[in-house]
Amino acid sequence: MRSAPPVKALAFDVFGTVVDWRGSLIREGRLLGRRKKPKVDWAAFADAWRAGYRPAMARVRSGELPWTKLDDLHRMILDELLARSAIRGLKEEEIVNFNCAWHRLQPWPDAKAGLAKLKRRHVIATLSNGNVALLTNMAKHAGLPWDCILSAEVVRHYKPDPETYLGAADLLGVRPGELMMVAAHKDDLHAARACGLKTAFVARPREYGPAVKVDVSRDPAFDLDARDFNDLARQLAA
Amino acid sequence: MRSAPPVKALAFDVFGTVVDWRGSLIREGRLLGRRKKPKVDWAAFADAWRAGYRPAMARVRSGELPWTKLDDLHRMILDELLARSAIRGLKEEEIVNFNCAWHRLQPWPDAKAGLAKLKRRHVIATLSNGNVALLTNMAKHAGLPWDCILSAEVVRHYKPDPETYLGAADLLGVRPGELMMVAAHKDDLHAARACGLKTAFVARPREYGPAVKVDVSRDPAFDLDARDFNDLARQLAA
Repeated sequence: MRSAPPVKALAFDVFGTVVDWRGSLIREGRLLGRRKKPKVDWAAFADAWRAGYRPAMARVRSGELPWTKLDDLHRMILDELLARSAIRGLKEEEIVNFNCAWHRLQPWPDAKAGLAKLKRRHVIATLSNGNVALLTNMAKHAGLPWDCILSAEVVRHYKPDPETYLGAADLLGVRPGELMMVAAHKDDLHAARACGLKTAFVARPREYGPAVKVDVSRDPAFDLDARDFNDLARQLAA
Repeated sequence: MRSAPPVKALAFDVFGTVVDWRGSLIREGRLLGRRKKPKVDWAAFADAWRAGYRPAMARVRSGELPWTKLDDLHRMILDELLARSAIRGLKEEEIVNFNCAWHRLQPWPDAKAGLAKLKRRHVIATLSNGNVALLTNMAKHAGLPWDCILSAEVVRHYKPDPETYLGAADLLGVRPGELMMVAAHKDDLHAARACGLKTAFVARPREYGPAVKVDVSRDPAFDLDARDFNDLARQLAA
């Protein structure tokens, strides 16, 4: 058994780790679809929207695009998806509102209570590729009790660029080894670990829906491996 | 009577506006002084520490110093004050802890309840020259319910540089005219107003102690003029 590392602050990946982006986008799509006629496969739409995310960020990370906040990348992807879809006649105001569905993503069932427990002993911060407004509005909407909203936007680098992990430690006033990255994504944790951060994997087997099997196998490279945020709080208090 | 402007978010100056830096530093000095012998005038010490703040930031704003976070400026000023004082024999760990007195400043009596009320209708964020760790630790220590911690550190410009006010609006995803700067300092508000922000003056007549008369006269340039945060919440809800 591995004892809990001496961490002062926890930095959380958000999309997929804290909130269920897929289920939330499907609900928002259906809400929009109730008033608009064409039958849309909102699950496929949500998956396609999310699938546009890495290529869009890659264009920023490579320098092909100047710094662009995630709200604007989401809108670029959305415009392409709408153009290719059967959905017609959305007003600009409806598109703006639908793009803000990302500001209204719902947390996984354990997230709020788990974060409240984790907050008792540690500084808890976001460390997401979502922009500050998106994360701030999401926290307000969903009641997520962050001590601090940190974002790729603040360092103007997207994860997994090392500037994000090292910048977060610097902003929180801790050494990289005193900061623990919490994520449901192994690539995020490997990149954090390469910068000297502690790492906690949280299993989110339903992130991509019931049909997609997510790799939640234990990776010995990570300091902690948790079933959910309540489990993580128990392990960090042990 | 002026009606409340259509603001979406509130950005708060912190030192003097939300927290009583002077009273808090005096208490921390006395705590330190109880264990160390020499009699120190901690009120004068607090005033001198704070007085070093503008000149130190001016060196950063002018480019004489590279970007330096406020914790480090506070430490530079503290080291000079300690060298000039009768205080001897502090261990490095005690100096580090005393420098973190700024992370433990106490809010004015109305601040916590007033912020909780303001948070119901608006996004509430810090917009302080304090660094992110300082503001995050202060909020955690004092129970300040910020939606978002914004700092000069994030834009790497100190107030009253326009980059701070415009950067805050951009990060919060609002237009400058949808952001209201809340401060007890007229120069801060005039600089925010020059950037197109709305402004609310909050009177903090005791910021510099009982002997110093603060100018809390109404300035018609500002959108709102409040006695404290509860009064501001009433005016914004009107």
